[in-house]
Amino acid sequence: MTDIQIAQSVREKHIREIAAILEIPEEELEYYGSNKAKLPLHLIREDDVENGHLILVTAITPTPAGEGKTTTSIGLGDALNLSKKKTVVVLREPSLGPVFGIKGGAAGGGWSQVIPMVDINLHFTGDFHAIEKANNLLAALIDNNIQNKTRNLGIDPRTVIWKRCMDMNDRGLRNIVAALGGKAGGIPRETGFNITAASEIMAILCLSKSLEDLQEKCGNIYIGDTWDGKPVYARDLNAQGAMAVLLKDAIKPNLVQTLEGNPAIIHGGPFANIAQGTNSILATKMGLSLGDYVVTEAGFGADLGAEKFLNIKCREAGLSPKAVVLVATIRALKYHGGKALNELTQEDVEALKKGMPNLERHIKSLQSFGIPIVVSVNAFSSDTEAEKKTLLEHCKKLGVPAALSYGWADGGNGCVDLADLVVEAAAGCKGKYTPTYELRDSIRTKIEKVCSTIYGAKNVILTNKARAQMNRFERMGYGQLPVCIAKTQKSLSDDEKLLGRPENFEINIREFEIATGAGFIIPIAGNILRMPGLPATPSAEHITIDADGTISGLF
Amino acid sequence: MTDIQIAQSVREKHIREIAAILEIPEEELEYYGSNKAKLPLHLIREDDVENGHLILVTAITPTPAGEGKTTTSIGLGDALNLSKKKTVVVLREPSLGPVFGIKGGAAGGGWSQVIPMVDINLHFTGDFHAIEKANNLLAALIDNNIQNKTRNLGIDPRTVIWKRCMDMNDRGLRNIVAALGGKAGGIPRETGFNITAASEIMAILCLSKSLEDLQEKCGNIYIGDTWDGKPVYARDLNAQGAMAVLLKDAIKPNLVQTLEGNPAIIHGGPFANIAQGTNSILATKMGLSLGDYVVTEAGFGADLGAEKFLNIKCREAGLSPKAVVLVATIRALKYHGGKALNELTQEDVEALKKGMPNLERHIKSLQSFGIPIVVSVNAFSSDTEAEKKTLLEHCKKLGVPAALSYGWADGGNGCVDLADLVVEAAAGCKGKYTPTYELRDSIRTKIEKVCSTIYGAKNVILTNKARAQMNRFERMGYGQLPVCIAKTQKSLSDDEKLLGRPENFEINIREFEIATGAGFIIPIAGNILRMPGLPATPSAEHITIDADGTISGLF
Repeated sequence: MTDIQIAQSVREKHIREIAAILEIPEEELEYYGSNKAKLPLHLIREDDVENGHLILVTAITPTPAGEGKTTTSIGLGDALNLSKKKTVVVLREPSLGPVFGIKGGAAGGGWSQVIPMVDINLHFTGDFHAIEKANNLLAALIDNNIQNKTRNLGIDPRTVIWKRCMDMNDRGLRNIVAALGGKAGGIPRETGFNITAASEIMAILCLSKSLEDLQEKCGNIYIGDTWDGKPVYARDLNAQGAMAVLLKDAIKPNLVQTLEGNPAIIHGGPFANIAQGTNSILATKMGLSLGDYVVTEAGFGADLGAEKFLNIKCREAGLSPKAVVLVATIRALKYHGGKALNELTQEDVEALKKGMPNLERHIKSLQSFGIPIVVSVNAFSSDTEAEKKTLLEHCKKLGVPAALSYGWADGGNGCVDLADLVVEAAAGCKGKYTPTYELRDSIRTKIEKVCSTIYGAKNVILTNKARAQMNRFERMGYGQLPVCIAKTQKSLSDDEKLLGRPENFEINIREFEIATGAGFIIPIAGNILRMPGLPATPSAEHITIDADGTISGLF
Repeated sequence: MTDIQIAQSVREKHIREIAAILEIPEEELEYYGSNKAKLPLHLIREDDVENGHLILVTAITPTPAGEGKTTTSIGLGDALNLSKKKTVVVLREPSLGPVFGIKGGAAGGGWSQVIPMVDINLHFTGDFHAIEKANNLLAALIDNNIQNKTRNLGIDPRTVIWKRCMDMNDRGLRNIVAALGGKAGGIPRETGFNITAASEIMAILCLSKSLEDLQEKCGNIYIGDTWDGKPVYARDLNAQGAMAVLLKDAIKPNLVQTLEGNPAIIHGGPFANIAQGTNSILATKMGLSLGDYVVTEAGFGADLGAEKFLNIKCREAGLSPKAVVLVATIRALKYHGGKALNELTQEDVEALKKGMPNLERHIKSLQSFGIPIVVSVNAFSSDTEAEKKTLLEHCKKLGVPAALSYGWADGGNGCVDLADLVVEAAAGCKGKYTPTYELRDSIRTKIEKVCSTIYGAKNVILTNKARAQMNRFERMGYGQLPVCIAKTQKSLSDDEKLLGRPENFEINIREFEIATGAGFIIPIAGNILRMPGLPATPSAEHITIDADGTISGLF
């Protein structure tokens, strides 16, 4: 059965039944149909947040197909609920753009999914649309200020870094010249669009602690310079109030359900390279307020997702996970051991062993945070007994608890062993995590600490351009911000061809970006695509809907 | 009191109470919060549509501030409900973009408003966002096809007329060069964005009779030509299925309420110059299925809105209004009589009399359709007794029933006289309306008939370019489509400075556009702005929201 067939085979509960599990009074729900609801922020209770069990799901360096963090998170959440732990899975919202490129959604898979999966993958409750409008209103205000003589801030159009955004895989919008057409069209300038998930507004929404905080963060966005080189912020355009109004509903977390009828909160979806790659602080806090356990995930491998989850999100929110689940697959480890992508279904214990250092390095990196780790081996039907045994024994040797998990095939029942290990690990958690760096460290020191402690790099090289930008950010007073390093997810290094566990490598910081609204500095190590394109034959071409609303070709 | 203060002073009913008035079972409602719901299309019953009383509200040539069609429609609807006629007002959705330009919304005014007015003016139920995504997916598929060698249709990038769209007043997007950045960015070409209300997808959504029909219409969109001059349609890109999936919820009409707790359906919002300027066929049919009376409005003056409502929408839908309400204001008539915009609050019976020919011409034009007409004088506090008397006596002399209406000041109670005249007029309706032209007329004949019968023009002049385009459309097999003339709303002529009742004027058709998906030809008489800009000091700068969600500066 395909994901959509499985999703459609399950009787969906009314969202009020899901809310009832969490003891949310019905009048607090803001319904979006019968299967989705927004939750008001006043349901967040800081005491419960403090006492809750936050479980982070992360992964080894992934293959292009991904290693199943979302599926594992949902399966683990369902398993914890089977074990009578009141659990909420808290996940990111998928982006709509990629749905029309390559067939498939991002709401879990097999018997570990969140539903309604079609809605979740398309417009959902409109959060991405609202983010787009807030982002693009700021862009319109910038060009309008450049165009008009009254209240002109003297913005140098060549310096404007604020781009428009759209949730669509549209390479034609990546680089444009806008404001053409003569005097009425504005002052022509080079600019472009990011996909919505890559916009700073998305990062801001996910790092905001309240609507007021969101409004203030929007005001703090750095958009470019004046002709005499002074920085200009969104607040100089008085943009933050209107932006916050556009985001007043988007800031509220969304309640849905897993296939097994357990609560799931899905909210926000920032990129995991140029942003923090995890759902909103408010959604995580909401989950901890409503349940005893929250299972959540962070994008890409642990070097990107977990590092930013801890050093950026948890630091900003005052959160600390009680355990980290590191998802590994036998397929991916064989890939890191030198097996080709199209041969991963063949048994190869030697390749598996050769790939193990990637797992080891991620374990070592995660251990630096001082939180208990559990390895979850996300099982595939092609995995052989010999391979499974080899992997579990290796974990035992490393002293890290590990379990096979079968979320895709069996839902919560397939993740009971994992859930038991997670409960045990969380019970043994000694306290708050230790961050990789202090905010008072210099920007360069922060980068170096992440590169050595988390990536295992030998050292860091900055281009002249990067050094100049870094110095300017420090002069502007942003030296205290955390760093959000943008690099490839395909390798622990900044070279996507270096699989396994690279050693003695350098990280090259080509340039910097800064997100003064969201509150982090972005050292860029590699080429980061913020606006994807469509493939030669986009999945959009195969999608149809019939008169009674049945969709085919989407998943 | 301001509009928003009035709106907030009223106790909003739960939308299920509004649905109960219309005997809609609760399980049929798709809630968007407690005050908005989408209605499933199967509630439409063609028998009820046939027997219902459809009342069209239109206006004389408006001043820049508008003459209050929406306010009159809502007040009239409330008044009919007071008279125990089960009435639904069916209106367009406002565009979000203009809200951040000039302060004020588009959901009625004073005591004749639809609520929740903030939501209705912002994201509402996400229909505009969905339209944007369907529009922009097609654009991405076009550029992707030009870029990729596989499945390449040989589209000549210079001929692509399909633009992207965004619901934002952003002049910088009006004219752009896209797909820059080298090989990976695509084939650079000139293009631009329309505001979402001006997109053909909006027109299609509003002219569709079902989801299947919508899908087919999306496939029929003409997007440009191949290098050897053959037309290319959205269906050649297999785009229509994915577009329809994106629009599967947007196609459902939205139920809200008036301040007096009566049902209102708000759905779709196409421009009234380059498109049909009225809510969706499905919303109108839904209203007629659920109520005995439907009050609806069409954009701008009767020359644009009413003409297109009848010759395009009603023809496509098989609808026919039982009465037309022509909204006039004493202010606007004085303006047509030569009074300056800033002097309209001064009594001036002579100017009023001099402006009367504008009203007369609209009455004459509307009479050509053979449906009963009622004049509604939308009262302002600056109107004097002498002026009111003059206007009503003039209407009496013309043999057209007329009433003062006070929807803004008094809601339904202020429109009872108007409601009585409307009920009487509808009862006297002799049958279906007579269209201005037949579909089998040539394109030129259709244009000429509209220009002479509705505008009172002497003749029509086509540029060479327009003639060539018209001939091509006929060769392409589109000679049978209705015409949707785009001209200024400020004059009956195509010269916005000709106020009152221009005589002996020519209409100049500069060029043509075609909307083969929506199904009309667009002769363009004048400069049509499809992407507005922001003013020097946008209202966005004054908008704030406080911690408890109270918005100020928006309305």
